[in-house]
Order: sequence, then structure tokens, then C-alpha cells
Amino acid sequence: MSNSRQEIPDIIVARLPRYLRALSVLRKKSQTTNSKELGDFLGYSAAQIRKDLSQFGEFGKQGTGYNIDFLTEQINSILNLDKEWKMVLVGCGNIGHAILNYPGFSHNGFHVIAAVDSSKEMVGKKINNLITIRDISDIEEIIKENNISIAMLTVPASVAQETAEKLVQFGIKAIISYAPVILTLPHNIRVEYIDPVISLQHITYYLS
Amino acid sequence: MSNSRQEIPDIIVARLPRYLRALSVLRKKSQTTNSKELGDFLGYSAAQIRKDLSQFGEFGKQGTGYNIDFLTEQINSILNLDKEWKMVLVGCGNIGHAILNYPGFSHNGFHVIAAVDSSKEMVGKKINNLITIRDISDIEEIIKENNISIAMLTVPASVAQETAEKLVQFGIKAIISYAPVILTLPHNIRVEYIDPVISLQHITYYLS
Repeated sequence: MSNSRQEIPDIIVARLPRYLRALSVLRKKSQTTNSKELGDFLGYSAAQIRKDLSQFGEFGKQGTGYNIDFLTEQINSILNLDKEWKMVLVGCGNIGHAILNYPGFSHNGFHVIAAVDSSKEMVGKKINNLITIRDISDIEEIIKENNISIAMLTVPASVAQETAEKLVQFGIKAIISYAPVILTLPHNIRVEYIDPVISLQHITYYLS
Repeated sequence: MSNSRQEIPDIIVARLPRYLRALSVLRKKSQTTNSKELGDFLGYSAAQIRKDLSQFGEFGKQGTGYNIDFLTEQINSILNLDKEWKMVLVGCGNIGHAILNYPGFSHNGFHVIAAVDSSKEMVGKKINNLITIRDISDIEEIIKENNISIAMLTVPASVAQETAEKLVQFGIKAIISYAPVILTLPHNIRVEYIDPVISLQHITYYLS
């Protein structure tokens, strides 16, 4: 029996994308895997893998392990990755440019369909022959016309909070923020921070 | 009594940088805080905060909470942030440029002291009047002469594994990788991945 979505700890949900990454590598040499192999690959115990996956249902059989294609499909479904997602990029500096040039998003079903910036020099610029940067004042129209729920926020820290509030006001439900500030937003809004300083401050624990 | 470093779950260590971020904000309005306020700020329960911190020692007093400066200093010490860290940037594309231009690293004691690339067009280019991009063939000399233990890896996915192996061979102990591949390295090497696709695949769980 699987639990309802609300009951599953976020820390377990957060691991599922890494499972997908591991499965895509393991699939190159086999059609099946097991909790030991997955655990070795990801640095968790086999017991942890089984416990994580059992939160969502029964995906493997005792002794025969997991069918990789089936498990991948199930995790994709759990994470709502069996559909395409539209995103807006807010801020087109170096990081914004890197995002627009990175093929990994659309390969995974995430499509940056619009990009905005507040700088007069940026607006009108065409990136990769694909997207023309628009003025940030168009953001409400862009979000509402395209029914976008995800924003990539790459504006300077000083304007991140006010920009995020506007995005939420216009209908954004989830934000990936590259700005090094903690955003204060309503509890139903999901925010994930991409912050290399946090990662650095974590690894130095293990250095001396 | 605090536990020894090896016994403390990595998931708790991983939260300490976020505690620091929260403390720096809370410090603007008060000299003290408590587990409830910290928990509200970070989205954890007060009990979780107390449990996390008790792994490392006794930092607060029943009823009076935590002195923010003292707790900050203690966490900085636990994470080895009471010293400066030298880093090398490997790969100088869009992300590499964003890293070189981002003041948040040196503000936090992390200094990119050298940058390398394999492209003839990049080598010799000066960024921000500070760092001149060097040829990747100089990497061994750079790491050894400067005794660098941290690398920021922003090369294409196709060469990430071989590049990481060289970095480790030359003495790098920790890697922040922006390449969307899982690196296979010796167990004593710390790797943190900066991967927005992982974050996106996490948040879509909560969208519909």
C-alpha cells in the first residue's frame, strides 16, 4: 500500500530525481536492477532504497529486483514528469544565458518558452535563434497567456524578493531561484534554491 | 555531549549552511533567536532544529534560546568556515563566467584563484581584471603550487568524468560539479552536484 502524497517526507521525494539519473545509466547495460546496485550507485544502503520506494508502491519482486523501464516510468509518473512543463526565465545575465543555452532542460521535458530582463540592452536580443528577450513588464501577460507555473529566477539578490512576489501574484506556483537570498512566499509556493555557496559550506565540513 | 564527526548524518551537516543563512537574516533584528523562530524561518519543526544542533554540542539555554553571534561562530567552526578556501575553476563557458563574476564566493571565504579552459579562444582572456584564463594543461601545476583542494567543474558533460579524475589525481579533494552526470570517484572525494534539472524534477511532484 502506498501512502498519500502529503504523507511522504519531502526528503524522500527529493531523492527520486537521483534515482532516475541512476536508472538511466544502469539501463545502458541491463534491463533490471536491484536495491543493492541502486544503493551502491547512489551511496545509500539497499535498505534505504527499498524503504524509499515502498512509500510509493510495490515496484519490484523479492529476488528478481526491479525492471528498470517500469521503475523509471513509475517514478516519472510520481514526479509528474510524464508531461511537458513550460517555464519562464526571469533575468538574462550570465546564468540566464547559460540556462538558455543548456539543452538538458528540454531533453527532460522542461521548456523555457520565454525570457525577460529589465535591462534595455538585453530586451530584443535573440538567443540561440530561438528566444527573444522581452521586457520584464510583459511578465504578467507571458505567464497568463501561456499558463506557466514554473519560473527560473536569476535576477540580482537585491530585487529577488520583490520579483518573486510578482511572479506569484501572476500565477507562478514554483520557483527555481539562483539568487542567494531566502525568499519569503506563501506556503503553497515551492521554491528550490540553486546556491553553490551552500554546497561549498557543506563540503568543507569534510575537508581540513 | 557532541558526537564525533563521522557519526553525524550528512543530511544534518547539509542543513547547517542554511542555518547560517537564516542566522544572518535574523541577526539584523535581534541578538538572540530560538528553535521555534529558526524552524519557522527554514520550514523545519522546532524539535528538528534542537535535535540537529544537539548533534554538535550545547549551543543554547533552556528558555533563553540561542545567542546568534555565538551560534554562527560555532557553526562556522564546525563547517571549517573560520578559514579561507582557495578554488580553481575548470571550464570557462557561461556558467564559468557567472562564477567568476559572482561576488558571493569571496564574501563567504571562497576564492577562485585560478581558472582554466581547453579552448584556444578562452586561454589568455582576462575576466573582471582579476583572473587570466589559463590552459587546462597547466592544471596540475596550479593545484599543486597553490595547494588547492576544491574545484568548480563546469566543463561539458562529455568530458566531466575524465576531467574530474585528473583533478583528483593532482590533489583535489572536493568538487562542485555543474555537469549533469554522476561522477565515479574514490569514496574520500566529496562531490556536490549543482543540477537545476534535479530541482525541477523535485518541484513538479507538488504541481499538477
